[in-house]
Amino acid sequence: MTDAATNMRLKLPIICFVLQIILIILFGVLVQYDHETDAKEWHNQTHPDYDNDFYYRYASFQDVHVMIFIGFGFLMTFLQRYGFSSVGFNFLIAAFALQWATLMQGFFHGMHGGKIHIGVESMINADFCTGSVLISFGAVLGKTSPVQLLVMALFEVVLFAVNEFILLTALGARDAGGSMTIHTFGAYFGLMVTRVLYRPNLDKSKHKNSSVYHSDLFAMIGTIYLWMFWPSFNSAITAHGDDQHRTAMNTYYSLAACTLATYGMSAITAHDGKLDMVHIQNAALAGGVAAGTAGEMMLTPFGSMIVGFLAGIISVLGYKYLQPILEEKLKIQDTCGVHNLHGMPGVLGAIVGAVTSAFATKDIYGNGLGDVFPDVASGEIDASFQGVRQAISLAVTLGMALLGGLIVGFILKLPIFGAPPDTICFEDSVYWEVPGEEESHDEQLTTVRTEESEKLNC
Amino acid sequence: MTDAATNMRLKLPIICFVLQIILIILFGVLVQYDHETDAKEWHNQTHPDYDNDFYYRYASFQDVHVMIFIGFGFLMTFLQRYGFSSVGFNFLIAAFALQWATLMQGFFHGMHGGKIHIGVESMINADFCTGSVLISFGAVLGKTSPVQLLVMALFEVVLFAVNEFILLTALGARDAGGSMTIHTFGAYFGLMVTRVLYRPNLDKSKHKNSSVYHSDLFAMIGTIYLWMFWPSFNSAITAHGDDQHRTAMNTYYSLAACTLATYGMSAITAHDGKLDMVHIQNAALAGGVAAGTAGEMMLTPFGSMIVGFLAGIISVLGYKYLQPILEEKLKIQDTCGVHNLHGMPGVLGAIVGAVTSAFATKDIYGNGLGDVFPDVASGEIDASFQGVRQAISLAVTLGMALLGGLIVGFILKLPIFGAPPDTICFEDSVYWEVPGEEESHDEQLTTVRTEESEKLNC
Amino acid sequence: MTDAATNMRLKLPIICFVLQIILIILFGVLVQYDHETDAKEWHNQTHPDYDNDFYYRYASFQDVHVMIFIGFGFLMTFLQRYGFSSVGFNFLIAAFALQWATLMQGFFHGMHGGKIHIGVESMINADFCTGSVLISFGAVLGKTSPVQLLVMALFEVVLFAVNEFILLTALGARDAGGSMTIHTFGAYFGLMVTRVLYRPNLDKSKHKNSSVYHSDLFAMIGTIYLWMFWPSFNSAITAHGDDQHRTAMNTYYSLAACTLATYGMSAITAHDGKLDMVHIQNAALAGGVAAGTAGEMMLTPFGSMIVGFLAGIISVLGYKYLQPILEEKLKIQDTCGVHNLHGMPGVLGAIVGAVTSAFATKDIYGNGLGDVFPDVASGEIDASFQGVRQAISLAVTLGMALLGGLIVGFILKLPIFGAPPDTICFEDSVYWEVPGEEESHDEQLTTVRTEESEKLNC
Repeated sequence: MTDAATNMRLKLPIICFVLQIILIILFGVLVQYDHETDAKEWHNQTHPDYDNDFYYRYASFQDVHVMIFIGFGFLMTFLQRYGFSSVGFNFLIAAFALQWATLMQGFFHGMHGGKIHIGVESMINADFCTGSVLISFGAVLGKTSPVQLLVMALFEVVLFAVNEFILLTALGARDAGGSMTIHTFGAYFGLMVTRVLYRPNLDKSKHKNSSVYHSDLFAMIGTIYLWMFWPSFNSAITAHGDDQHRTAMNTYYSLAACTLATYGMSAITAHDGKLDMVHIQNAALAGGVAAGTAGEMMLTPFGSMIVGFLAGIISVLGYKYLQPILEEKLKIQDTCGVHNLHGMPGVLGAIVGAVTSAFATKDIYGNGLGDVFPDVASGEIDASFQGVRQAISLAVTLGMALLGGLIVGFILKLPIFGAPPDTICFEDSVYWEVPGEEESHDEQLTTVRTEESEKLNC
Repeated sequence: MTDAATNMRLKLPIICFVLQIILIILFGVLVQYDHETDAKEWHNQTHPDYDNDFYYRYASFQDVHVMIFIGFGFLMTFLQRYGFSSVGFNFLIAAFALQWATLMQGFFHGMHGGKIHIGVESMINADFCTGSVLISFGAVLGKTSPVQLLVMALFEVVLFAVNEFILLTALGARDAGGSMTIHTFGAYFGLMVTRVLYRPNLDKSKHKNSSVYHSDLFAMIGTIYLWMFWPSFNSAITAHGDDQHRTAMNTYYSLAACTLATYGMSAITAHDGKLDMVHIQNAALAGGVAAGTAGEMMLTPFGSMIVGFLAGIISVLGYKYLQPILEEKLKIQDTCGVHNLHGMPGVLGAIVGAVTSAFATKDIYGNGLGDVFPDVASGEIDASFQGVRQAISLAVTLGMALLGGLIVGFILKLPIFGAPPDTICFEDSVYWEVPGEEESHDEQLTTVRTEESEKLNC
Repeated sequence: MTDAATNMRLKLPIICFVLQIILIILFGVLVQYDHETDAKEWHNQTHPDYDNDFYYRYASFQDVHVMIFIGFGFLMTFLQRYGFSSVGFNFLIAAFALQWATLMQGFFHGMHGGKIHIGVESMINADFCTGSVLISFGAVLGKTSPVQLLVMALFEVVLFAVNEFILLTALGARDAGGSMTIHTFGAYFGLMVTRVLYRPNLDKSKHKNSSVYHSDLFAMIGTIYLWMFWPSFNSAITAHGDDQHRTAMNTYYSLAACTLATYGMSAITAHDGKLDMVHIQNAALAGGVAAGTAGEMMLTPFGSMIVGFLAGIISVLGYKYLQPILEEKLKIQDTCGVHNLHGMPGVLGAIVGAVTSAFATKDIYGNGLGDVFPDVASGEIDASFQGVRQAISLAVTLGMALLGGLIVGFILKLPIFGAPPDTICFEDSVYWEVPGEEESHDEQLTTVRTEESEKLNC
């Protein structure tokens, strides 16, 4: 299964080393510790060490980090012979994207005297951006080389940062958990890329594009970690105090309601009432996606549960009925069904966020209004206009994602990046040394006997 | 393997949707943000955002959350063909129980103007109650439908909340880590349920009621997470400061001592000295259970280690000698051996708690006495009476659990819930779409050759 | 496969019980709660409960704990038939070592009125010492009995504590993340032990000394957890405030750069450009090891990335070219390649630490200089002398590790500890009850048919 076209011996080292060396140089020129990580700056002021933001963000960061590397990585191991690539390429592109995102987001979030200042908050933001790239990875899973993935990440991070800048800074939208910036963007970007990379003969690898028993269990590790830590994800960069607390709790209830909806829908849509692991692994997470924008708002647990419940229903219906149509009619081969987990629930989350924003009042938020809607609290705009901003942000995100995915898709079509042929997609052995299967005891016995009979024959 | 009786196409969606919609309505009517999660309430007072309890409980909550969903979920994947159900039903009933527990515990813990106030502490308590349901799940594992499990959770959560109210509020007992409220209650409730659901012909599924190599490794993921995070579990809702700190440390040493006892006992009770995975996966955790009540007290690391050591010994002996007797004589088919991991060590923990309480003095606790024993510190009662309260609490818990389990067991016997027949217990394919095994390379080769010879024959 | 020599029925229980009982007695005599965990002491002073160090160290502790039990445990499950032993013996020796380390480190770190005071910081230090033992375990993996491992841990913990005392207290070196104390010490100690235990006929077990597909995926769980939480590891016991924050961030970027270097090197050193799981599982972590000493210093993200990049390159080259030479020429059978992951990167980290120390100035660190280099800040020594101290510390560590490993290796050679014979190394069934393989559906079918034909024959 060694093939000149897919041979990574030169391509992968070149792109890894070139990218990493460029990153190191740019970090050397542009990046500085912020005032919470710099020894001199921190000690220039008088404050207890316990006030360092490390103690109020780092635990959230670690939960997000687990979602990025274990959550996304293992969620994609459901394929029978693509576990090495799922975890391994996830690892590679995430390690690249988080460095590159530090620079891009730092650039757009505002430089300090020509320098990018970094600390735990920039680390969380970099992981968020990485999450978006990994969502897109889910759409093209099994059909791309690691070099293609790094090239995709290279461009997607830039576009993510631009879109994030437009939404959060230029338009003044709120999107703490990234229903729009992360999920909608990542999903529609990835869907457009996979559309451009459409493979009419992908059914030649069809037998590999499915799970086996233990691969589904590995995937559940990813699912459960994503589910458990989503409250931390949505609350990781909200304002301190009630905001973080409320966001985590809203997400927790949204996910719980989503899970019951998912199990119900999975059974009702199967002709024999049997649960489908694809739904459980994915749709049960849609409640976290859909609470990404409104989670920090006074959505109430009641509202959160309704949102999660709807997200679960929509997501299972997407897997069951919409995905085959997208593949057949629109030629979108969406390996992980990111449209159902991140796309539609992301759009739902954006709409819920817009509506919840539009109804924000001083009566509900009290003096906390400024934490969530600073421009409304300052009187600069009214709440309904905040809702309009949110809606425009969704439209911008969809536009950026689809246009960006279109362009990047065509770049990835260049024949130099070592994409696998149609016959061996979803297969680790193209890019990995894959060990043999364990010898069964029978085989060992056979070996021994063969050796013995050979001896006898001598 | 499709059977009308076990077909979940209507039963499961109906119960999921009905329960979730009722939950949503009740949350809408009854539940409010507490003063730490409500924007207006929080900002009504003057305090730094860093004082929000989120920063002093949420990390503990997340550790508990991991124990509930990864710990319990994967611990039960040891069965060779019940991994989907173990993780998946654990996921389902936990997602339901935590919502339902929020309401039940909120109701019993005291309403505020007709409303239940929620925040991170109620989230931890809801997860605790869920843990108790999952312990009971361990007793009936492999023999119940998801509908039965949801019905069991529905009733068990109510009884848990009642029992917890009697113990902590009415009797004034201390049980921060839940040796009584969680472990003893969950275990004996589950044992009684499985007794009522006794299947005389369960040996027809005997060949499925065992592990395979990789299923034991998956189970170790659950074990290790439970073991690591048990210090967080026992300390999650104790008083802040020295109390949380001490509880975590006591549990840490109890578990360490328990682990050495478990390995020693596992080897000594095997005729050939070989370690048994069942013991390692389970008995090594008994030290956490047994430190559940006294962990917050001045048990000392020395005392904690003795407790853990005894718990490990008792637990292995239970697995080795008592469980077969319980099954044969008392007809208790305890799939996971919850009697050995949660039942006996829970009772041990309750006794240790009673004794440790009885010897509490101002000399030992200083001004910290009020944090652990408020009624003793206020002079309302003396320490020995606190010990009596603890002992009574154990008796109440055993009574509630056994009686509750009896009633709920008979409810679950109703033939409408889709229990699996005796011949296909411990089998995922009753309720799940199960993928085929991976094609071996030989088979692929065969397929190719067959196709080729077919072509030749044409 | 039952053999009197490897039968653990008496040996393992005796050592477990004797060690644990001695630990309990020593804890009873010597160990006390410190002022943050003791109810009386804590309440003797006036301070908010939120000032308890629990809230500023416990989250780091839990991350370290996960690295020790899940990280190291699962990293070693890559062997096809040694998963039970990898996770299980890791669990056993860690549970012992952390108790024993509490005593040894407490003894050397200074007694308080004849008592060892413990709290979350001692728990982190005990886990650190345990990590060093587990590194040595990696070198001898598959070739030692659990009794040998406990004996090794018994001695290694003592030597670790002595070496740590010499470095940090006597020499005044800095080594927050343990490039020297943990990684260099653990690696060279283990390498010397495995050298002394050299087995000329180990190739008789050669077919077991390799991975299978799913064992490599289990190992990736270990890898990813180690990778994610390494920032917490290196920052767990640094000074509060900017120091912890900076250390975590430096480690994060070092690891990211290391990962790209590892993928590049793995592809370029394979004749067909295919990635090797051994490299990804191990070398990608070298960036964390190499940032262990200088991580708390003003290394800058730029410097951290260079260090990580070099560490990844060195580590892959070690696996590819040096390890076979060490085995063939020096007779060092290093199962996990700890020389490549912990040895060389640890030495690199020590050197980077010495150089970074030598260039520390008040201009760079401001008033924060005292947190990192107290003796330099106080004017007692100048920075270049601090660099000399660091370099001497590396030499001392190498000497202690090699000499200690030599002695302990010979102790472990005593024929009473139940080492496995050369023919069945890397095999769980020597010390574990191992379940059979899952029946395939074909076999089930065969069974059914056989039964049917038997019926027909009747």
